[in-house]
Amino acid sequence: MRYPPAIQKLVEELIRLPGIGPRSAERIVFHLLKSPPDETVRLAGALTELRKKIHHCSSCFNVAQSDPCPICADVRRDQHTLCVVERPTDVVAVERAGNYRGRYHVLMGKIAPLDGVGPEALRIRELIGRVKRGGIGEVIIATGSDVEGEATALYVAKTLKELPVRVTRIAHGIPMGSSLDFSDEVTISKAFQGRTPV
Amino acid sequence: MRYPPAIQKLVEELIRLPGIGPRSAERIVFHLLKSPPDETVRLAGALTELRKKIHHCSSCFNVAQSDPCPICADVRRDQHTLCVVERPTDVVAVERAGNYRGRYHVLMGKIAPLDGVGPEALRIRELIGRVKRGGIGEVIIATGSDVEGEATALYVAKTLKELPVRVTRIAHGIPMGSSLDFSDEVTISKAFQGRTPV
Repeated sequence: MRYPPAIQKLVEELIRLPGIGPRSAERIVFHLLKSPPDETVRLAGALTELRKKIHHCSSCFNVAQSDPCPICADVRRDQHTLCVVERPTDVVAVERAGNYRGRYHVLMGKIAPLDGVGPEALRIRELIGRVKRGGIGEVIIATGSDVEGEATALYVAKTLKELPVRVTRIAHGIPMGSSLDFSDEVTISKAFQGRTPV
Repeated sequence: MRYPPAIQKLVEELIRLPGIGPRSAERIVFHLLKSPPDETVRLAGALTELRKKIHHCSSCFNVAQSDPCPICADVRRDQHTLCVVERPTDVVAVERAGNYRGRYHVLMGKIAPLDGVGPEALRIRELIGRVKRGGIGEVIIATGSDVEGEATALYVAKTLKELPVRVTRIAHGIPMGSSLDFSDEVTISKAFQGRTPV
């Protein structure tokens, strides 16, 4: 004997999601059965809306409900600077920091040969297109500092080399509020290499 | 800047679920945005069906799509024995073991004064009603072996004491496939207390 079909079906759909195993799926189902029916209705509604409303901006490929996205459409933002990131979550992180006023280009991933993700799977061709169309003075590469992020940064920098644009990489070093004690060797080396005059 | 409203809304609904924090909610949303739209449609559908189709059996209080539930409706099952468990998940566990042929009574929780759950919040009154209606020869108490499960077992046993029914508790001892080495002191004491002649 298993659960009634309606529970079984929902458990099967939930375990497809990242980070949810059979146990957590069961917990979620019984949580929903205990909660006011509204909660389940709202969750189902939010899921339906997601795929209907969310698209990728045809210019920067960030997730958005409008095209171009609010950032690309904002004429007050610096149109000469592009920040290249891996994912939409990175855009939110940079915006939260609050002092970058340029635009973005979301690659939608990073080069990861082991996972079968080559450069052609990313939005690199579209980045070159944007730079070629002109008006861009600087491309700031802000991919991650892990191996794949570094490889992607190198690849993007190489691809843009022939074009009349300044290509920069965000600094890597000791995080603010931290001490040398808590930093690994690679980070400390990077911090020394990237030292600036005071 | 935050995510577009449709993403924000779904994240807010997801973090209400047990075991899902803001990070895992984001991961789920971006997983869904990457997957075929079908996956989201099926998940939303399964959620909607859940609350429409799943009810509690009016006899044993297990979750079911029919009333009485398939186990209560099954005339081949022993009608004289009731197994008292805390939750619908326990019914599935006992059914998986496969040799219990009686019926169930799901208390829908356990007595937990610290969480404000008293006996009146459980389906104990309904259990007494079922026993009083007659035809029940044995009530097997299979609540958990944690403090609340034990307290619930004691309370149920005391409540049934005046009624003409045999009340038993499932055995506690060394789990099968395990050794004394790996068992805690309370389990070992219980195993000695519950020894049977060979």
